[in-house]
Amino acid sequence: MTNKEEVQDKRHLRSIKTKQKLLQAAREIFLTEGFQKATISQIIKKAEVGYGTAYVHFSGKEEILIVLMDHVMEKFYQIAEVSFSPSSKEEAHDIILSQAMDFLKMAETERNMLQLFEQSIGISSSISAKWNSIREKFIQRISEDIAYAQKYGLAKAELNHKLVARGWFYTNEMYLWEIVRNEQQGTVEEIAKTITAVYTGGLYQMNE
Amino acid sequence: MTNKEEVQDKRHLRSIKTKQKLLQAAREIFLTEGFQKATISQIIKKAEVGYGTAYVHFSGKEEILIVLMDHVMEKFYQIAEVSFSPSSKEEAHDIILSQAMDFLKMAETERNMLQLFEQSIGISSSISAKWNSIREKFIQRISEDIAYAQKYGLAKAELNHKLVARGWFYTNEMYLWEIVRNEQQGTVEEIAKTITAVYTGGLYQMNE
Repeated sequence: MTNKEEVQDKRHLRSIKTKQKLLQAAREIFLTEGFQKATISQIIKKAEVGYGTAYVHFSGKEEILIVLMDHVMEKFYQIAEVSFSPSSKEEAHDIILSQAMDFLKMAETERNMLQLFEQSIGISSSISAKWNSIREKFIQRISEDIAYAQKYGLAKAELNHKLVARGWFYTNEMYLWEIVRNEQQGTVEEIAKTITAVYTGGLYQMNE
Repeated sequence: MTNKEEVQDKRHLRSIKTKQKLLQAAREIFLTEGFQKATISQIIKKAEVGYGTAYVHFSGKEEILIVLMDHVMEKFYQIAEVSFSPSSKEEAHDIILSQAMDFLKMAETERNMLQLFEQSIGISSSISAKWNSIREKFIQRISEDIAYAQKYGLAKAELNHKLVARGWFYTNEMYLWEIVRNEQQGTVEEIAKTITAVYTGGLYQMNE
């Protein structure tokens, strides 16, 4: 390694650390102050980084929140990205049930951050646009899974897979927010089982 | 009729007219200005009623919007209140399809007002609470319909009707907002047919 490369590496490492400090500080400030009240100055102060340095990474609190959303949603995407190649309707049902269960359980484990997101979606149009893009990512993935199941004769072929996917995601999403607000009736297990039974029953025409 | 009664009747009539004037003016102001920018003073001025008189009827713009929401939702409730006593799974499917279709079509005919509601739900907690109560009213009604179908052996009895009802309403509601925002993919007919096919297929285990 040349001396120049070494210097660049150190700089790069320092830059990553600064970014992490800002994100960690932002997380704490957002959770205590709420998105609306939180200011970028509070975050920079808490992170103990210089103003100039901070603005190299983020232009404002919305941009920071968007990165935090990506971090949390990464865990959700992993659920959606479980490989879906069922060889029977029953197997399809089981995979979907476990996805729905994992998705709704994340509402409990990530409650604080999701409460923050819900709050900020209502306030900021760029956060709301971010949520829409997250939503579309999920719907796209569900859509592909349905198309797969239709191709292999498991799911009813006459249904528009894109429209089915949206409908299914919406049910999951709205239950997610219910759980985030701690307003759900019934356990996460019961909710997941019930909505999955209706969905897979309708889409796959499962027999009892 | 005594003279006293006649005077009271006239007063009552005048009061109704004042209220109507205020509601009509509010509708216009809200639609042109948006909920956030609209002020109660603009509404009172437009309605050409006295300030004191106006405040007898409404304490603020949120209260006026809530009454306007009730007026619009009255039309939606009529859809939910269609008598539901199907004698076969097919009949149940047809009633539910026509309800879903009517519900989503209202998103088109009442687009302006619903855009206003969606906007104000994000801003005002009392408007948001109002929307929640509207939602619960629908879910309650759907829930009763499912319980009826379960009682008569048409719908799967093992499913929790309250949880199924919420899931079904959420799909309809989210598609309603899509249509309100003019962002839907596919026609209202196709959306209604697709989501109804999945829902009734799953809940009633319909045969093709």
